Amino acid sequence: MCASCPSSFPAPGSKADLEEGSALTPRFGADGLVTCVTTDAATGELLMVAHMNAEALAKTLETGEAWYWSRSRGELWHKGATSGQIQTIVEIRVDCDQDALWLKVNVAGDGGCCHTGRRSCFYRKVESTGGTPSLVQE
Amino acid sequence: MCASCPSSFPAPGSKADLEEGSALTPRFGADGLVTCVTTDAATGELLMVAHMNAEALAKTLETGEAWYWSRSRGELWHKGATSGQIQTIVEIRVDCDQDALWLKVNVAGDGGCCHTGRRSCFYRKVESTGGTPSLVQE
Repeated sequence: MCASCPSSFPAPGSKADLEEGSALTPRFGADGLVTCVTTDAATGELLMVAHMNAEALAKTLETGEAWYWSRSRGELWHKGATSGQIQTIVEIRVDCDQDALWLKVNVAGDGGCCHTGRRSCFYRKVESTGGTPSLVQE
Repeated sequence: MCASCPSSFPAPGSKADLEEGSALTPRFGADGLVTCVTTDAATGELLMVAHMNAEALAKTLETGEAWYWSRSRGELWHKGATSGQIQTIVEIRVDCDQDALWLKVNVAGDGGCCHTGRRSCFYRKVESTGGTPSLVQE
């Protein structure tokens, strides 16, 4: 996060403004991030959950492509810049209290999203047998 | 979060274990939480984004109903306990690095999810005209 960068977005207002207003005033957390859920615009499939700081969100709105903040690398992340899996924005939605965003995207390149090579990051189901959860790949 | 409660889940292992293993070892953040994305099992609609601590996840697995950690109230939250909008789990998935969960649920009561009365928390679209984003309800 660029802690010294001024945010491109107005500060959040009252609960009523947040929930019913027409201004995008994201509630970035103490870490400067909002949660971002990304789905395939065509199929509705959940592809990934990532995070955005103000700069990533501003760049996403400006370019029409998904930019995130990589928490592991500590840097701005233009998704697909190296893999070719560019995510073109079809629609962005925000939740009631403006601390989460929903991106509907078209994925370029091989259509994948997960760094493990899968299309979606959610390739494992949690199964609970006899009280012990385990993960099953499908 | 119950900071003194022992987690019901094994500690996360190596990157390979996290990504390809069959053990559910959630990577709770510094705040003790993982992100949870909840969709309608029948329609695929994104209903809400919330958070779970270890206790909420354990209760969800144990009861087959969604429990979250309410960050605003600072307490365990059995979704629907007062509103009737109980979320019955159809499937739980986990992402590659096990810091996000995906719940597919059936919603009881009036089928709603958002505290504002809407079915989904994502009732506003971000529109960007002339460089200024604004929110549009649909």
